[in-house]
Amino acid sequence: MKIIIVGATGTMGKHLSTAFEKEHEIIRVGATSGDIQADITSPDSIENLFRQAGSFDALICTAGPSYVGPWKTMTHKEFRRGIEGKLMGQVNLVLMGQHYINPKGSFTLITGALTHEPVLNFASASAANGAIEAFVRAAAIELENGVRINAVSPTVIEDSPQYFPFFPGDIPVTMKQLEYGFRKSVFGANTGQIIKPY
Amino acid sequence: MKIIIVGATGTMGKHLSTAFEKEHEIIRVGATSGDIQADITSPDSIENLFRQAGSFDALICTAGPSYVGPWKTMTHKEFRRGIEGKLMGQVNLVLMGQHYINPKGSFTLITGALTHEPVLNFASASAANGAIEAFVRAAAIELENGVRINAVSPTVIEDSPQYFPFFPGDIPVTMKQLEYGFRKSVFGANTGQIIKPY
Repeated sequence: MKIIIVGATGTMGKHLSTAFEKEHEIIRVGATSGDIQADITSPDSIENLFRQAGSFDALICTAGPSYVGPWKTMTHKEFRRGIEGKLMGQVNLVLMGQHYINPKGSFTLITGALTHEPVLNFASASAANGAIEAFVRAAAIELENGVRINAVSPTVIEDSPQYFPFFPGDIPVTMKQLEYGFRKSVFGANTGQIIKPY
Repeated sequence: MKIIIVGATGTMGKHLSTAFEKEHEIIRVGATSGDIQADITSPDSIENLFRQAGSFDALICTAGPSYVGPWKTMTHKEFRRGIEGKLMGQVNLVLMGQHYINPKGSFTLITGALTHEPVLNFASASAANGAIEAFVRAAAIELENGVRINAVSPTVIEDSPQYFPFFPGDIPVTMKQLEYGFRKSVFGANTGQIIKPY
């Protein structure tokens, strides 16, 4: 299977690339490194990514930039970081990628528990997550040729302890649990699902 | 109570303005008519709206422009209509309005059943709705001075029969049911809730 991993140089993407490369062809996409460089906030950059990668069987996105900060002093430009990154970045990967993906291929996006369990300072990410989850359900009934789409929704990630103080009481998801979540989407048959790997 | 109704010249906004004006001061906001004109896709226009309206007790938004069309040929610019309108428009009403709203005031936004029950052609609205619902939960724990925020989630609206063919099997929400949903948010004590008026 030819799998494009967007965010391959991040914490989650590195783990997934290593886990899947034993049995699959992996195209690593990063902002500044990897096999192909792409800025997911730029539609032109995404189009260029697909032109370079060519047809593929699965796309995984673990890249979801957003804004972290208190609501009281937040500006609309700050709030937009999650909208341009985690939301429109991922939507555009699917919107443009649908013209390159092989029949029966799959898209797997990243969301998170913030959709239903908000914490202070993460309103921008909450909104992006909620959008991605509703979008996954909507796109699942639009995509043709057996192409599937799901999102994986972890809580805080084991290998990102810098976020633990923001998520009091959240039991961290292990890297192995996270990997299982993506396996379920990429190698399973579900579509339109929000997969909680815990 | 001084209530700002954004979208006051639309189907929902007209009904709510008439229903609430007997007992409350209503500031009607429309794109091209009403007491104040505002374009919710423009942060400058929203700031100008609040400067003109001054302090207030409740803001209701029934304006949620989005894009309707099939996924296969949709461009990212078309998809953005829901993101700039129903999503960022409503977020910015809260982000900027928090500095003008009276203590114990409330924001009531519009979402819809598309968050969990997608129909063909409405992926842009689904994403906007999902974002608004997660945002409402996130903003509810950020807002200070007892300020509340909720969203009302109807299915298709009784007085908008032009949408019925897109929503096969959806039982239309009556204008009275819709009004009850907004009453629950504005005059109740809940916060962070998605109110289904059916």
